[in-house]
Amino acid sequence: MNSNDCIFCKIAAGEIPCSKVFEDDSVIAFLDIAPVSVGHTLVVPKGHYEELDRCPSHLLGDLIGCVGRIARAIAGATGAEGYNVLCNTGRAAGQVVDHVHFHVIPRVSGDGVFSHWPAGEYEKGQAEEVLASICEKL
Amino acid sequence: MNSNDCIFCKIAAGEIPCSKVFEDDSVIAFLDIAPVSVGHTLVVPKGHYEELDRCPSHLLGDLIGCVGRIARAIAGATGAEGYNVLCNTGRAAGQVVDHVHFHVIPRVSGDGVFSHWPAGEYEKGQAEEVLASICEKL
Repeated sequence: MNSNDCIFCKIAAGEIPCSKVFEDDSVIAFLDIAPVSVGHTLVVPKGHYEELDRCPSHLLGDLIGCVGRIARAIAGATGAEGYNVLCNTGRAAGQVVDHVHFHVIPRVSGDGVFSHWPAGEYEKGQAEEVLASICEKL
Repeated sequence: MNSNDCIFCKIAAGEIPCSKVFEDDSVIAFLDIAPVSVGHTLVVPKGHYEELDRCPSHLLGDLIGCVGRIARAIAGATGAEGYNVLCNTGRAAGQVVDHVHFHVIPRVSGDGVFSHWPAGEYEKGQAEEVLASICEKL
């Protein structure tokens, strides 16, 4: 997908309408049209980057600063007790639009959203092995 | 919880061991001891902040830059096809340790991790109402 086909680029350019929460020179934020909870917002860089790890660091800094500010406003507006900030990268991770975005999802106790946290444990030696592999790639 | 009682502060200070992935002056990253998938890593500011929206913006920028770099290394090391970056703020959102942290969770297609995405829709007028409330708080 290039930026010509990208729905978030079109929203950023004002070619597709959105319920706009926030906008500055580099970032736009709007309500998700299929919300996981009321107030669920997407925070999106205006520039087209498919993957979080390909975003320039200054832009990531701008983005996450907006995420924090917007999350506080959403929590205040909705009476949420907390929130999830989530960026899915790749289809395998649930990314649907190939343009980096952070979900800000307000939460209240017992709302049943993301209630499954499938924590596991490492087999003997497995943690050391993956740790060494990661450190090699850094 | 203050920083004296905080397990992540103790890890950052070297008082509790961890499987360390990365460390610099302001950030430490280590394997989650109860991984959702192999390579699941926590990226943590060394300073004690409970909530994402209370973190200074320069520190958030440092953090998210590390998250991107580490996510790429984890994907390379584990053969993941994608990854989730997740910050839970507040008990209602699944935050267990009251010290800001980003989860980096490598993913492959069909792994069944976070397979439930409970998307909903707004009733008539509801989106406009919550949007106005959020914008008032910003």
